[in-house]
Amino acid sequence: MSSDGIREIGVGMLGYAFMGKAHSNAFRKIDYMTWPPPLKPRLVAIAGRNEEAVSEAASRYGFERWTTQWQELVDDPEIGLVDNLGPNNLHAAPTIAAAEAGKHVVCEKPLGRDADESFEIWRRVAATGVKHMCAFNYRFVPAVRLAREMIEAGELGELRHFRGRYLQDWGDTTAEIWRFDHEAAGSGALGDLATHVIDLARYLVGEIDVVGGFLKTFIPGREVDDAVEATAEFANGAVGTIEATRLALGRRNAFQWEINGTKGSLYFDMERLNELQVFRADGDRARGFKTVLVSEADHPFWEHWWPPGHIIGWGDTFVHELHHFLAAIAGDTDVAPHGATFEDGYRTAEICDAIVRSSESGRREAVEYRMLR
Amino acid sequence: MSSDGIREIGVGMLGYAFMGKAHSNAFRKIDYMTWPPPLKPRLVAIAGRNEEAVSEAASRYGFERWTTQWQELVDDPEIGLVDNLGPNNLHAAPTIAAAEAGKHVVCEKPLGRDADESFEIWRRVAATGVKHMCAFNYRFVPAVRLAREMIEAGELGELRHFRGRYLQDWGDTTAEIWRFDHEAAGSGALGDLATHVIDLARYLVGEIDVVGGFLKTFIPGREVDDAVEATAEFANGAVGTIEATRLALGRRNAFQWEINGTKGSLYFDMERLNELQVFRADGDRARGFKTVLVSEADHPFWEHWWPPGHIIGWGDTFVHELHHFLAAIAGDTDVAPHGATFEDGYRTAEICDAIVRSSESGRREAVEYRMLR
Amino acid sequence: MSSDGIREIGVGMLGYAFMGKAHSNAFRKIDYMTWPPPLKPRLVAIAGRNEEAVSEAASRYGFERWTTQWQELVDDPEIGLVDNLGPNNLHAAPTIAAAEAGKHVVCEKPLGRDADESFEIWRRVAATGVKHMCAFNYRFVPAVRLAREMIEAGELGELRHFRGRYLQDWGDTTAEIWRFDHEAAGSGALGDLATHVIDLARYLVGEIDVVGGFLKTFIPGREVDDAVEATAEFANGAVGTIEATRLALGRRNAFQWEINGTKGSLYFDMERLNELQVFRADGDRARGFKTVLVSEADHPFWEHWWPPGHIIGWGDTFVHELHHFLAAIAGDTDVAPHGATFEDGYRTAEICDAIVRSSESGRREAVEYRMLR
Amino acid sequence: MSSDGIREIGVGMLGYAFMGKAHSNAFRKIDYMTWPPPLKPRLVAIAGRNEEAVSEAASRYGFERWTTQWQELVDDPEIGLVDNLGPNNLHAAPTIAAAEAGKHVVCEKPLGRDADESFEIWRRVAATGVKHMCAFNYRFVPAVRLAREMIEAGELGELRHFRGRYLQDWGDTTAEIWRFDHEAAGSGALGDLATHVIDLARYLVGEIDVVGGFLKTFIPGREVDDAVEATAEFANGAVGTIEATRLALGRRNAFQWEINGTKGSLYFDMERLNELQVFRADGDRARGFKTVLVSEADHPFWEHWWPPGHIIGWGDTFVHELHHFLAAIAGDTDVAPHGATFEDGYRTAEICDAIVRSSESGRREAVEYRMLR
Repeated sequence: MSSDGIREIGVGMLGYAFMGKAHSNAFRKIDYMTWPPPLKPRLVAIAGRNEEAVSEAASRYGFERWTTQWQELVDDPEIGLVDNLGPNNLHAAPTIAAAEAGKHVVCEKPLGRDADESFEIWRRVAATGVKHMCAFNYRFVPAVRLAREMIEAGELGELRHFRGRYLQDWGDTTAEIWRFDHEAAGSGALGDLATHVIDLARYLVGEIDVVGGFLKTFIPGREVDDAVEATAEFANGAVGTIEATRLALGRRNAFQWEINGTKGSLYFDMERLNELQVFRADGDRARGFKTVLVSEADHPFWEHWWPPGHIIGWGDTFVHELHHFLAAIAGDTDVAPHGATFEDGYRTAEICDAIVRSSESGRREAVEYRMLR
Repeated sequence: MSSDGIREIGVGMLGYAFMGKAHSNAFRKIDYMTWPPPLKPRLVAIAGRNEEAVSEAASRYGFERWTTQWQELVDDPEIGLVDNLGPNNLHAAPTIAAAEAGKHVVCEKPLGRDADESFEIWRRVAATGVKHMCAFNYRFVPAVRLAREMIEAGELGELRHFRGRYLQDWGDTTAEIWRFDHEAAGSGALGDLATHVIDLARYLVGEIDVVGGFLKTFIPGREVDDAVEATAEFANGAVGTIEATRLALGRRNAFQWEINGTKGSLYFDMERLNELQVFRADGDRARGFKTVLVSEADHPFWEHWWPPGHIIGWGDTFVHELHHFLAAIAGDTDVAPHGATFEDGYRTAEICDAIVRSSESGRREAVEYRMLR
Repeated sequence: MSSDGIREIGVGMLGYAFMGKAHSNAFRKIDYMTWPPPLKPRLVAIAGRNEEAVSEAASRYGFERWTTQWQELVDDPEIGLVDNLGPNNLHAAPTIAAAEAGKHVVCEKPLGRDADESFEIWRRVAATGVKHMCAFNYRFVPAVRLAREMIEAGELGELRHFRGRYLQDWGDTTAEIWRFDHEAAGSGALGDLATHVIDLARYLVGEIDVVGGFLKTFIPGREVDDAVEATAEFANGAVGTIEATRLALGRRNAFQWEINGTKGSLYFDMERLNELQVFRADGDRARGFKTVLVSEADHPFWEHWWPPGHIIGWGDTFVHELHHFLAAIAGDTDVAPHGATFEDGYRTAEICDAIVRSSESGRREAVEYRMLR
Repeated sequence: MSSDGIREIGVGMLGYAFMGKAHSNAFRKIDYMTWPPPLKPRLVAIAGRNEEAVSEAASRYGFERWTTQWQELVDDPEIGLVDNLGPNNLHAAPTIAAAEAGKHVVCEKPLGRDADESFEIWRRVAATGVKHMCAFNYRFVPAVRLAREMIEAGELGELRHFRGRYLQDWGDTTAEIWRFDHEAAGSGALGDLATHVIDLARYLVGEIDVVGGFLKTFIPGREVDDAVEATAEFANGAVGTIEATRLALGRRNAFQWEINGTKGSLYFDMERLNELQVFRADGDRARGFKTVLVSEADHPFWEHWWPPGHIIGWGDTFVHELHHFLAAIAGDTDVAPHGATFEDGYRTAEICDAIVRSSESGRREAVEYRMLR
């Protein structure tokens, strides 16, 4: 219990780099930007392999202690939530261990490096009864939530098309980073970027039944794919494309998607994440896509922020995401449907595996999802 | 020879509807917007099945005579060029007959309803030695030609990605039009829209080796496809997607494509056909896509038009296209590479057929191109 | 009477350069793009000072004869309409003479070089009873007419703001052209560009009562202004700004205006002349400006053109404008309110004069309009 | 000294509403987003008139204590920096008192309600030798700083035009807020919005010599102006317009400005604050404005944030602003030129006063700036 009467939760974080900064910032902002916060995150400990880096991160972000042994997070009785932001090959063991120690768990995407690993994480964690969330933060962009609400309310009618692509351009590099290492990452643009496209496709349009496509590696000697090109068929009859690449020069963080229904359409680009393009077939003679600046008092998440038109940043999506998770813990409510559970993380992995199979077989591949007993 | 000493060519047109208006307008404008014109088109005769409509079209567009028998165009010694704008099932016979009668021929896209028919048209016409062009007018958008010139000059480096989609939204209708009739049209969005995407993909990026994807019909009872979703692999190693739909609400004529290379990227949308988005990886700290208003004195086709910034319309692309064809006739020069020949029309049909095969087989399909002996 | 039973009108044109090309093209397209045309324009004669140029223009655009003496147009009994596209110092005499000879007259903007000259043209021509139009062609952009219709229908409520600016960037030149000659042009950006802004302000918002501002010449030795900066107060209480410059690098033909009312707003940019941005305060949670592609069957002027989304060009605005004038002649209907009459041309000149007075006096200046007795 | 060896500074804040939230958030983020921070802000006390509200704000933002008497901030020896975010009529007394008590002072804009009050604040505070900053936070938008750097480096050449407008649309309300109270606010859109335009005009283009224009109140009974329309003449010869309104429906926070120079142009819209539009007259055939996503490693302020393309929010501009002020305190360096000093606040007030005089006199008014002896 903090001094102002709000319950605390001890946070243990694994990882201190890009995502460590993003999540630490979010935990610190939840304290006062969301008011009252569902739980006050207390930054108890941070773990990482590089002693110098992890100790500086602890000092910078305000963790009470640091360690090079993630097991210490699992063993720490003051920690109630473990946030696993390590590289992909470090997702399974710490996440499962933390859950089995009774901690709620957040795990960075992709959940595992393939469907088998992802299923195992889900299965083991679900068995413990803790809350779990796979950190697909783009569900928590206000424009994405608004899109979801419009679709749920039937404002688009029946959905016919989804075309999603995540375009970045930093891949033409000789830098040695874990994201190019097959053992550490599992895959390239597929696990890193296409998973975001797949997750939002599922969140906004519905389940995917069939995919066809292939992976492509352009850079000689690279162990993982640089790009993914695929078609998709949804259970509800919608069809479309899924693309991801690290080699689209000029596109820095262009996660773009469009959805067409029988009553309207939506378009979005993460480089303008505060905007949603909305078309309604409402018979207005002035017919066209609206550029909606998603920042109104009645827009999703906006009760936490500023007056209309005063836009938020990419980093703020994590505030929404972790706030949602803390609220689920505090109120013992479901992480789904707005948060991606480990089941969602697993299902995305099944779709990725199906794309890999299609790449190898040359066939469109049906996606089959395993269930927990 | 016209009174001002410019040689004339007699034009016979088959079809008087949407495309008849577009081509008639172009022939009339070539007379004075391009100066001096390579040949002065003399509108000799127009053919169509509806007597009332074709006679009014003759009066409106200034054809000297009209007929309900296209054979009369073929037999008319005053006609040197037959422009076939009929429905797809009327492409083969009149086009071949006209060529065999020694007339130069323009044929609306798609060349035939499938690869076999298209190949036959090409084979028969090529044997006659006349000039032939398949009317893929979007090659003659100034921004498209500028893109081609930049790519040829190496300004994009090696090409890695093409993503093209042609989105329209008029398909949700119960109107009975030949475009929904399988016999007349051959296919739906595939032959109507995807062929444009494929043609520009070939013109800008290069030959396509493999495609995978499928057709989709949403409207119950419709004989043809409403949408196409496909992946593509190019001979030069580039990869991407090809999409077309008549059911993307809010998109009226959104033929959008993006090309990413190792030195830069281009983006285009036909709804803003005067603009080309250009990204150069030139190290400028001010890094981003330029919105180029393609209307400068040194831009393609612009010698015919206005001062910079005074944009042209969709209809004007036909002025460029038919001017190009007249110049090829006048100077006995090649229609290729900037004009789509019947070989180009045939090759596009092979790719369409491969998409149809893939749709049915569930496999990515290699495209094999027949050659003339 | 032409062969198809549509009455003809003989056109005499003064001027063969930029505007000569634009108007000739329009007259020729009216013949078939508008159907049936109200009158068939017969291009009888073209006049200009340079014998070689005017004879080539006659040949190119299809005028039956040419002359270096504009008086011949006035005297020609076969001419029923004189279209004066000469430099500004050639507006008054030929226009008045033609009207007094009973010809209907179109005069390029600005009507005269100042209010006195403009008033004189109006007064003398009005006395003859012929139809007269000052060629403010931007009233005939479909998006502008749509804006007018929306405003007239009350869709914007009461108007509060107009901010208009016409930005070009070709002024940094040492070329010797009549537009820089004070005697020939009267003024620089003021008469050339700001008049367009003022005309649309009057057409869309209403009469202007007060202006304050100044002219600015940047280029040493230039006789005319390069830029105008002004504020405006309208009779209906709206307020705003009027700007024009030939020195806004990167803006090629950026005639941009925005109107804010109590129920909505409109925004327009001539570089995207097919688009109108529309905001409605209608309570829709998805709140924002719509990008309306003005190309629907029920949009202004669109009965003449193509299916939706197939945009028109800058040159096509003249088709609408001259079609409107021919219809007024054919039906003996008013050129106003959609066409700018010589009264409109005169009133714009009064506002320009008031800006010049304000520039010199340092005071905001009331605009007073003379009436015909 | 905090536990990690970074010096602390005690912060006292006056005001807890919109700006209180923005500044509190910034002080808390400086702690870890900028690393190491120049000084660690310690939130010592917050003052406000409403006891319930100020106590909740203290609890929410983490101030150690709260008070309803701003004098307590002045008297508090643990406070080294007073941040005055009160209504405009509470700017002078607390700010002066705090400075005279030796505290560094930040004061929200506008500095005073008119030039006299602003001058007095500047004069009294400057005499104390403390650091002072008027909180024109938009100088700290990365795109604005990049613009300044480009202009300083000569990349735009000589400047010719500035057109700035700050458009909001919330003014059509019967809400009773201090911003409509003449005594509390001094003015309406002028002090609230036009001051931002004027400050960036001065920061980017240079000093303003002459203004002409007027204030306009649309809402009956409102004590302050709803809109400002003005022309401006700069000392360096540039000319342009300055506008502000609270009644531009659809514009939520549209602070838009454009600058044209002899070598290039810049355009900016606060609703897309991560973007700068850049035109360079560099002879590239692909000529146009670049949309620069200001988020590169070598872009201003970006060392604090994320990988390219991961945009920041409006609230983050305060992180940059207060970081700058803390660095000036820590290093005893000048707040100018990047921070707006009280001299800048005063000069902006002189320009506002000149617009008010012009509104009343009907004359363009020269601006004269008082100096400190």
